[in-house]
Amino acid sequence: MKKVYIYLLSFSISVNAFAQDKKTTGAQLNKVKLDFTIDADGRPEYSVSYNQKSVIKPSRLGIKLLNDTGFDQHLQLISTETTDVDELWKPVWGEVSVIRNHYQQLTVHLKQADAPGRLMDIVFRVFEDGVGFRYVFPQQPNLRYFIVSDELSQFSLTGDHKTFWIPGDYDSNEYSYITSKLSQVDAWVPYKAATDIAVRVVPDQYAVQTPLMMKTADGLYINIHEAALVNYTSMQLHVDRASYLLSANLVPDALGNKAYMVAPGKTPWRTIIVSDKAADILSSKMILNLNEPSKIADPSYIHPMKFVGVWWEMQIGKSTWSYANSMTDVDANGNLKPSGKHGATTANVKHYIDFATKNGIGGVLVEGWNVGWEDWFGNWKEDVFDFAKPYPDFDVKELSDYAASKGVKMIMHNETSGSATSYERQMDTAFKFMNKYGYPAVKTGYVGKIIPRGEHHDGQWMIDHYVRVAQKAADHRVMLDAHEPVRPTGLSRTYPNWMASEAGRGNEYNAFSTGNAPEHETIMPFTRLMGGPMDYTPGIFKIKGYSDVPGRQVHTTLAKQLALYVTMYSPLQMAADLTENYEPHMDAFQFIKDVAVDWDDTHIIEAEPGDYITTARKAKGTDNWFIGAITNENSRNAVIPLSFLDKGKKYIVTIYADADNADWKVNPEAYQIHSYLVSDKTKLNIKLAKGGGAAISIKPAGADVKGLKMYK
Amino acid sequence: MKKVYIYLLSFSISVNAFAQDKKTTGAQLNKVKLDFTIDADGRPEYSVSYNQKSVIKPSRLGIKLLNDTGFDQHLQLISTETTDVDELWKPVWGEVSVIRNHYQQLTVHLKQADAPGRLMDIVFRVFEDGVGFRYVFPQQPNLRYFIVSDELSQFSLTGDHKTFWIPGDYDSNEYSYITSKLSQVDAWVPYKAATDIAVRVVPDQYAVQTPLMMKTADGLYINIHEAALVNYTSMQLHVDRASYLLSANLVPDALGNKAYMVAPGKTPWRTIIVSDKAADILSSKMILNLNEPSKIADPSYIHPMKFVGVWWEMQIGKSTWSYANSMTDVDANGNLKPSGKHGATTANVKHYIDFATKNGIGGVLVEGWNVGWEDWFGNWKEDVFDFAKPYPDFDVKELSDYAASKGVKMIMHNETSGSATSYERQMDTAFKFMNKYGYPAVKTGYVGKIIPRGEHHDGQWMIDHYVRVAQKAADHRVMLDAHEPVRPTGLSRTYPNWMASEAGRGNEYNAFSTGNAPEHETIMPFTRLMGGPMDYTPGIFKIKGYSDVPGRQVHTTLAKQLALYVTMYSPLQMAADLTENYEPHMDAFQFIKDVAVDWDDTHIIEAEPGDYITTARKAKGTDNWFIGAITNENSRNAVIPLSFLDKGKKYIVTIYADADNADWKVNPEAYQIHSYLVSDKTKLNIKLAKGGGAAISIKPAGADVKGLKMYK
Repeated sequence: MKKVYIYLLSFSISVNAFAQDKKTTGAQLNKVKLDFTIDADGRPEYSVSYNQKSVIKPSRLGIKLLNDTGFDQHLQLISTETTDVDELWKPVWGEVSVIRNHYQQLTVHLKQADAPGRLMDIVFRVFEDGVGFRYVFPQQPNLRYFIVSDELSQFSLTGDHKTFWIPGDYDSNEYSYITSKLSQVDAWVPYKAATDIAVRVVPDQYAVQTPLMMKTADGLYINIHEAALVNYTSMQLHVDRASYLLSANLVPDALGNKAYMVAPGKTPWRTIIVSDKAADILSSKMILNLNEPSKIADPSYIHPMKFVGVWWEMQIGKSTWSYANSMTDVDANGNLKPSGKHGATTANVKHYIDFATKNGIGGVLVEGWNVGWEDWFGNWKEDVFDFAKPYPDFDVKELSDYAASKGVKMIMHNETSGSATSYERQMDTAFKFMNKYGYPAVKTGYVGKIIPRGEHHDGQWMIDHYVRVAQKAADHRVMLDAHEPVRPTGLSRTYPNWMASEAGRGNEYNAFSTGNAPEHETIMPFTRLMGGPMDYTPGIFKIKGYSDVPGRQVHTTLAKQLALYVTMYSPLQMAADLTENYEPHMDAFQFIKDVAVDWDDTHIIEAEPGDYITTARKAKGTDNWFIGAITNENSRNAVIPLSFLDKGKKYIVTIYADADNADWKVNPEAYQIHSYLVSDKTKLNIKLAKGGGAAISIKPAGADVKGLKMYK
Repeated sequence: MKKVYIYLLSFSISVNAFAQDKKTTGAQLNKVKLDFTIDADGRPEYSVSYNQKSVIKPSRLGIKLLNDTGFDQHLQLISTETTDVDELWKPVWGEVSVIRNHYQQLTVHLKQADAPGRLMDIVFRVFEDGVGFRYVFPQQPNLRYFIVSDELSQFSLTGDHKTFWIPGDYDSNEYSYITSKLSQVDAWVPYKAATDIAVRVVPDQYAVQTPLMMKTADGLYINIHEAALVNYTSMQLHVDRASYLLSANLVPDALGNKAYMVAPGKTPWRTIIVSDKAADILSSKMILNLNEPSKIADPSYIHPMKFVGVWWEMQIGKSTWSYANSMTDVDANGNLKPSGKHGATTANVKHYIDFATKNGIGGVLVEGWNVGWEDWFGNWKEDVFDFAKPYPDFDVKELSDYAASKGVKMIMHNETSGSATSYERQMDTAFKFMNKYGYPAVKTGYVGKIIPRGEHHDGQWMIDHYVRVAQKAADHRVMLDAHEPVRPTGLSRTYPNWMASEAGRGNEYNAFSTGNAPEHETIMPFTRLMGGPMDYTPGIFKIKGYSDVPGRQVHTTLAKQLALYVTMYSPLQMAADLTENYEPHMDAFQFIKDVAVDWDDTHIIEAEPGDYITTARKAKGTDNWFIGAITNENSRNAVIPLSFLDKGKKYIVTIYADADNADWKVNPEAYQIHSYLVSDKTKLNIKLAKGGGAAISIKPAGADVKGLKMYK
């Protein structure tokens, strides 16, 4: 053994031998400034200001790897690049027909100071309305397949902002929004109360979902979300209620791992949209701009559309999805005995096809057409449905021919009950079935605990699954409306056949539970809809009286239901009610017939999250405009300047408004319809009832203006 | 507060208020006796004796449910039934052409004494060679979908038996067997040593796999396994080394749950085969008898066969599965650059087709034909292979036509790399591809960690998957040879297209690792093969010298390689070596050409696990017999009475034996071939070298007996 001599010297021992100079760089576009720093420990941080006011204080960045040296500290800044981009592009469908993508991009190239010296870039894009950033792993010799154990992205907020939030639930977005200060966030309160949500998993008491909407005391609006969520897991935000620091919480897989990645590769973008105008949040195109361009070479099969369907009647208990009362209700030959309450019968569907064709509605959705509904929910079954096997009273061929003869499209329904593995086994068969019978669109569902067991609706395996479904649908030229998936992040740019998703608390909650408060629809565009369209299923005319449960009703006026076709953007819009509830009100239904689902332009006239929204949109390829104005539980006057109209032209407005004594609770179905002449100089002033709204259609005045007065 | 008076009385408090009379019942068939008891706590127990000697001492039974009252105690015996069955049935293929199913069945109907009073039956079948039992859940109002959290089945052994075992590994059976006393079982020793096995998961230090083979000090042979493993998870056995008590260890899923069940439903059978003759263990038909009859209405596409293939050359490193050296080795157009070492080329495959047709071998297997091998293993990738996309140098159409023109069948290879979800998405495409190109059989593989992540090769989800694959193959009239699945449990009766599995340490281990000791093949029929045939891939003629690694070789003589075609039963048998290694020894290869793969009858002439096996089989529909005699590391004389031959007839035997100086280690390839005349009175006496064997073909002597002497 060697002798070791210890010399007593005065020296300092660094436990951590790593030390480097702090380095700072940045980027800017107009009012938005981004700063990036690598500190002495090699830890990367960023901050964001708007109009010289801090929005995000210095906040950490980084990625940790499972059982391996990560990218959280001891990083060296090797180099940076800055690029400026200003381009225009056209979406296949959308709120506008041309989108400007204007940003300054800063790429920082980082390298681990420790062995094995792996590389990671962080890419920032500074827009006029905020910042997006993501992590990029270049091709390199020492990194190939790896597992992300944690992401350290933080958003250090400057104060106890007013926040519109739902719990960070791994499996559901179907909560009502809570409006509170950041310091008051407690996810377990709504989690425990939401007994109307089937599958709820909220492990972190202080985690919230994105898109997260906030308003500072100074009147700055901030929205945090992610864009281009592919090949990764979903991000939620842990709230430190004392420091107002938000930290990324990645949704784990069955083993607790977060994301399985390969280099070269990249994470989704984390997005921070900021403005001093609430309307700018709604108009922001950052999330779409951060997504990859369309992968669909021939989008000629993709058509925004409206539809009716055999659906609300089951939600309100008037009929059933299932054919028989139960699985064991069989005859002597072992065949299911019809209960007589099945909704999806050939006759009933024909009735809806007739209504659709008579009223210019493009499609009919049918739920409950296929075998499996007697034993479908809550059993965590591997194999629930056969996606090519109709019930005996649903004649798929006859209905296919009938719809075609009437110029109406059938919309397929594929409810998976959460068994994604069963659906993947059947997808080829299911989509071939759709092609065979001429179904141009499918509504999918994931109601139930996920199989593969241990996975979550918002985990990476399911995120990959939803994309596989979109891709398979595209391969078969079918449009997709996904219910209960992960909330969207702008992928409708990349997969424009993926028209809409649910992933939020829809109008349906009014059918079977306490429903949605009047403020709900004034919040949703600031939150859920930031990532993409929602199939909200508005258009309920029989607001009350469809249920025996006391107090159960839709929590809006009828006029607000019409307005939602404009304020709740979607290229797929359902007129959700029963035909018998439309027939007494075909004057009001006229708005639904007329309203477009694809737009050249959109103006957010005025908006305040939780309070009101007024939106005007120009129907694609026309000179027609549609306006929707909605309010929360408070009555208000919506002042709507029509300055977006062409100058020097006259237009006819038809205003579908609340009746003077309308009220969402006591007199919701009272409406009034008036038409006037207007010009770009007109300012409409419409009284919205409590929980009310107004829907307005505007067309150029032709010769036919007899009897119409100028609006005043 | 009330006053409480405490009276001192002498009384006993039952913590557990439940108490009932003990009840006993039983069943018997000849030497095998089963006793069943419900004790005072309502706990069910059983015991088994053979020839009045205890085999299984009183052992617990029961099933526990997740978060619910289970079936482990407080059970009432409501009633019993006894049934006697004695029938014959014919398998589609097998070791024999007619199987007798003879048992006495005892059903005990149990009911929970506690609410909600659920029902469970335990069904025992007593055979001449042991007992099988399973749990049955009848249709009932208070039990529908449920989760099994544990199974309490025990096997209380009477002593420290000699045991042939491998670790209870959730993902692999590819260990060499260890022979030790029960008290010496330590699964972590082989677990840590087996660095040649890719994926190993052995959470319990004292758990062993089934089939478990034992021999008592009294010379009784006991084999424990399961039969009809469907809709449940796999059972392993925890060994209490002090009490010799074995307890069922069920393989968990990603969440730690064991099995997802529904009533009406049933578990697999737990089987205990017992005899005082080792040969009876090998002849037992209990496991097949406990399986459901064939589900395949038209088995006309199912043909036992032999095959050669492009495979061993990759195992010994002479060529590669992959086409390019790596994924990044691409040309200017992004196409993979051929390494020149790809095995599965059109030319090479044609060479094997030529060999097959010339030598009456039915099929050619090709591995490495499809895109994905450059990046396939160890990355836990979701999507690894495209099962319908050949490499550029594999012309699937040309080879399909060529094989057909030569009367040879192509055998498809679908390696999943463990990504079962990817395979399930592609199965329709993969099997249509097989049908299109005339592949009547597929070899599947699961080399790698399973996806869905968190699941195990031996867990319920994968067990259901293997059955889905067998069913899909049957739908497409394709035969299945599954590699790396769960070890078989007799399902080849129910799915006779599922010809063979690997699920064990095959001959291939000699190619790339320390290989298989000479005793290996004398153990495997007593263990792995009890549940079904193994695609062991014997027939290596170049025993040494195929590898640069010192000491690497096959650990048997060449003659033993031939004998394995008889002793290692499979309806699919590979002649695994390179054609250039057969060509110098076509005299020895004659045995492989002649040996049958389907049998009318089988006699186990003599056998001792770990030491030797001599098996004689009668080729189906002929008067020809084939015998295989093998030994372990010890040389021995195999004495083989031919009393099974027809009396009064003469036969020609051709004996492929070890040369006098053969030795598995130093002179393995030395063999001698002699032919003789024999009759049913003949007793062959053949010297087997160390690690040696003898293969014998016997056919009725026709007129052509010139020059042949009587054997003596």
